[in-house]
This record gives sequence, structure tokens and C-alpha cells, in this order.
Amino acid sequence: MSGDGRIVTAHGGGGQLTAELLREVILPALGGQDPAALCDAAEVQFPGERVLLTTDSYVVQPLEFPGGDIGKLAVCGTVNDLAVAGGRPVALSLALVLEEGLEIERLRRVLTSAGAAARAAGVSVVTGDTKVVQRRGEGGMTINTAGIGRPLPKADLGFHRVGTGDAVVLSGPLGQHGLAVMSARKGLSLASSLESDCAAIGALTGSLVEALGGSVRWMRDPTRGGLAATLVELSEATGLDVEIRQRDIPTDPTAAAAAEILGLDLLNVANEGKLVAVVAADAADEAVNVLSRHEIARQAAIIGHVGPHGSPPLVEMITTAGGTRIVQMPYGEDLPRIC
Amino acid sequence: MSGDGRIVTAHGGGGQLTAELLREVILPALGGQDPAALCDAAEVQFPGERVLLTTDSYVVQPLEFPGGDIGKLAVCGTVNDLAVAGGRPVALSLALVLEEGLEIERLRRVLTSAGAAARAAGVSVVTGDTKVVQRRGEGGMTINTAGIGRPLPKADLGFHRVGTGDAVVLSGPLGQHGLAVMSARKGLSLASSLESDCAAIGALTGSLVEALGGSVRWMRDPTRGGLAATLVELSEATGLDVEIRQRDIPTDPTAAAAAEILGLDLLNVANEGKLVAVVAADAADEAVNVLSRHEIARQAAIIGHVGPHGSPPLVEMITTAGGTRIVQMPYGEDLPRIC
Repeated sequence: MSGDGRIVTAHGGGGQLTAELLREVILPALGGQDPAALCDAAEVQFPGERVLLTTDSYVVQPLEFPGGDIGKLAVCGTVNDLAVAGGRPVALSLALVLEEGLEIERLRRVLTSAGAAARAAGVSVVTGDTKVVQRRGEGGMTINTAGIGRPLPKADLGFHRVGTGDAVVLSGPLGQHGLAVMSARKGLSLASSLESDCAAIGALTGSLVEALGGSVRWMRDPTRGGLAATLVELSEATGLDVEIRQRDIPTDPTAAAAAEILGLDLLNVANEGKLVAVVAADAADEAVNVLSRHEIARQAAIIGHVGPHGSPPLVEMITTAGGTRIVQMPYGEDLPRIC
Repeated sequence: MSGDGRIVTAHGGGGQLTAELLREVILPALGGQDPAALCDAAEVQFPGERVLLTTDSYVVQPLEFPGGDIGKLAVCGTVNDLAVAGGRPVALSLALVLEEGLEIERLRRVLTSAGAAARAAGVSVVTGDTKVVQRRGEGGMTINTAGIGRPLPKADLGFHRVGTGDAVVLSGPLGQHGLAVMSARKGLSLASSLESDCAAIGALTGSLVEALGGSVRWMRDPTRGGLAATLVELSEATGLDVEIRQRDIPTDPTAAAAAEILGLDLLNVANEGKLVAVVAADAADEAVNVLSRHEIARQAAIIGHVGPHGSPPLVEMITTAGGTRIVQMPYGEDLPRIC
């Protein structure tokens, strides 16, 4: 186990170290859990009905940033985990851990934002919890949301449904969320304003599955670890190569400039309002069509395809310059506490 | 709003200040929520099936204490919220917020304990999340669990079902959890060992509802704020007086001695393995019978009854000395971070 027997920041980054902690410590300790079954959203069989369950804790700093705040993020993130699992989000729990000294006005702002995000996403916050812990500095807070959803009848998703030749579709430009948070933290002022892409994508996934049914093979929102972590996970789980073309990846000039200044790779930066979908090749154009009808996915594009079986399976990017680059799972995280 | 516009520890204590924060800040900010509907466990209607959803974050210090640890507590607490809502717990999510510097062996111990508690309670941990935040001192952690459950077919519970003359039943002695945690924190050594009562009570509630059906009116686990908070909530929500008899409340001599030393009132101290049930008067003896067949409820007893409509409705305790004492909602919390 890395980290000299103690938790280090990179254990929470969504990269290799997070996977190692999960595989070597968390799952064995909990016992009797199937790692493959412990996905972002789990399906629980009730008599007569299947229910999806998911959870995420939000520890973003600062609590408020351009385009969003921890409240909006806590709603969108959990709604999105249900959405990419092929579910219609139905209800959320919301649990607060508040530090002594937190301004109550600030609490009110972020919860107002959470409530608005929930209404926009069509979900209800139905239960909650509030705890207070000692002051630790600036008077912060963390939020946990758990969500339940109902599987969309037409959804038939999973790594096992991904095959060679399938297209990889991305709903919009990368990195806006992580870079907006980081810019706010560093007090970085950019020529034009950089805003988090924080949004619920349940409408995107819902209309995609409704229109294309089983031609949608697999969906994911590229949060911690960015598009890189998402595609490496896809490649490792399926045993298939994945090839993407840099020139086809939608870009936001402000985000690209911010990444340049901060020395970060857009592929590794977290998003919270984007969708990666693997769809059958003959449905790819229609997928882009369906997505781009939504305001938040105007720039949707086919960015690559799934290749043959690889040993080891790799994610490769054809760069704008015409070269080939191996895309790797980020080790820790470039941007701590962005979600 | 109390606290000079900032969060203070007592906002998390489960007493008056917690209720004020919920009523004046959290619910209005989230918007469109029915306070009465925001109970510990919410029921969500799925086509063909009702699902219960609940959540709690656990911030206990120290992380390990006699009789339990944060992992066992995080499983039992959430299972118990489903249980007292009349549900059969089915599945849990488990989300970790770890501080840099936390010993991984300690993480492994508390998760092993969580896994064992889940198996003992018959629930599966099906999804999770891990975040890491900066070091803040001793290297701690918080855990959030959310749980889903299925309503027991025979359960028909609610404040509206409680009436004058109903009996109040308690499954065992008070205060063991809160006092065990506090003793561990203070390094207090007592003659005999004081252990947390931390346990899942799903078997208690399940057998009670199975045996007595609609004669079980309302159930609650007396956690933060203790039995006092539970009964004041009952009285306020129903508009009915509640009368309990001090001599009939089961006691644990070690817990009583610890409360004496720490200057605490056992009625206000948190528990996490006890059940308060309001049952029809003619079913009260049978309720005690059913409960006391379980190892963790050997000392179950009828401790009082629901009185007539009061203005204002009050909880009164006939003391061992024969006097009458008004039982009030604790203001903040006597014991911070006991759950």
C-alpha cells in the first residue's frame, strides 16, 4: 500500500491510488463485496421493481465558485451518477457536516442553490441529516447526497455491451468545472470568465436512451480524473483499445488557456456536466443530433471509437499534430478537492 | 437565528438549536419541502413498490471506543433509522471522507467492523465513495451511510396513529453509547467496563410489527438528544402529554455511575441500539414479551403512557422520589460528536 501506511491526498483523487485503496483496503475490509458490483450506482432488486442507489460526498474548496457551489454540485453529481447508470433520478438524501464558524448566510446560499438544482433536475430532497464538527480553519462544510432512481425501461448498458467499432461520443468541452474551481482558489483572473460546467445531465441521458435504446452501450460522467480516467476504466474493464482524436474533442478556449497557465492536462481535469457515451457506430450521428438539441450539449461530438482487443488494452490519442499519445490513468489528482 | 450568524457546536446536537436550523435555514433554503415529510427515513413511491430512503453522517470522536467504532455505528445507525420507520433494511451506500494522515490500518479496522455489522443486520453495502481532505489534527474520518428499505407489510406507523392511553415501551437501559464514547474521550476509567450499546435493532422492530401489527403505533431510536428529545418530539407532534415513570426505566449501573461522574442526565444521552415504541395499551405486555426474547432487549419495559391533549403538550416524569419533573428538549448537546 502506497502512502507509508497513512492516507495521502492522492488516495482521494480518483486515479490509481484511489483504485488501490478501494481494491486493497476498503472492499476486503467490508467483506463479501463483489468489486465489479460496487459501481457508482448500484441496482437493488425490490419485488416488482428495480431501484438504483448511489452516493457521493462533496468536499470542494472554495465552497462557492464561478458557475456553481457545493450545493449545486452535490445535487448534480449524484443525479448524474444515476443518469449515466441508465436511471431516471427520483429522490435524494442530503446530509450536512458543518464546521463551527460557518456563516449561516453562506449555508443558506448553498442550500438554496441545491434546492434550485434539484427542482431543475426533477428530483426531490426527501431526507437529510445535520452534524457539526469543531472549527478547523475557514469554517467549511461537506455535503453527502445519496440518490435513488428508477432504471429507464429502454436502457441496456454495461461494459459487456461495448464492442469493437462502437463510437465514443462526448457532450461538450472538457475541464470547465475543475479549472473554474482551481482559478477561484488561486484567485486567478482570466481575460474572459471561466465558469464551472456544473449541471445535471439526466435530460441528456434520458433522451439518448429514449431515442437510441440498446444502441447506447455505456455512459459515464467524466468527473475526478477527467476523460482520461473514464476512458482508461472503459479500456481496462472491456479489454479493448480505445482511440480518440484530439482535434475532434470540443474545446472551450478559456478552459484551454487556464489549463495552459496552470500546467494541467485537460484530459485529467474534472467535469460535472458532461457525458461520455459509447454508442453503436451506426447510431453515432443520431446520438450527436439528439444531444446537441440540449443547451448544455451544443458542442457534442464523436471523439473516437473502440478498437480491437489489446494486450494490454490501451487508450490512445491521435494528437492534433498527427502523433500518437498513450492516455494514462492519472496517478493521484491534479486538482485536489474539486468535487 | 442563534449563534451570532455562525454555526456553533450545539447546532448539531439534535436539540432545540438543530430544530431551529432545520426550520429556519435548511428547509426554506432547499425550498418546496414539507418539514413534516422530511423525516429520518423518507418513503418514495415507485410504481408497484414503496421504497424507504434514509441517511446519516457519522462524526464520532474517538473513532474507536469500547463496544464499537465509527464503522459499526455508521451501519447500525442507518439500519436503525429504516427499522423504526417500519422498514426492512435492504441495502446501504457508504461514503468516506478521510483526512490525510489517517492510519490505513485504522481505516481497515473500522471498515471490517462496518462489514461485520452489515452482515449481522442482513444488509449489503452496494455502493460507495471516497474523498480525502487536508490533515486537520489527529487524522480522522467521517462516514456517511444512506440506506434503502422496504416497508414491512404489517407496519402502520405515524404520529397520527398515537392516542391517549397508548403505552410507551423502551427496549433497555439508557445512555450506554454516549457515555462509553465520552469515557473513552476523557480517558475516564470506571470500575466495570462501560460499553456502547451500538447494535442494529431491525430484528426488534421486525418481530414487534410481525407480532402486533397495527397495535404498534410509532417507533423511534433515541439517538442524539436521548430519550428526552424522542419523547418531546412525540409530544409536540401529537399534541398529547406523555408521562413516564423513572422507576420503570431500565438502568445500567455502570452507565448511571458514569452519568453521575460526568454530571449528565441519562435522559439526554445518546443511544444507538435502543428502541422506543408506542403501542396500544392492550398490546403492551405482549410487546415487552416479544422484545425481551432478543438478547439486546432483555430489559425491555413499559415506562409510561401517552396522556390527554395538553396545552402546551408536555412530557412529565414521575421521579423515583415521587415528585414530578418536566422533561425538556435538550438545548444543544451534552455530548458533542457521539454519533
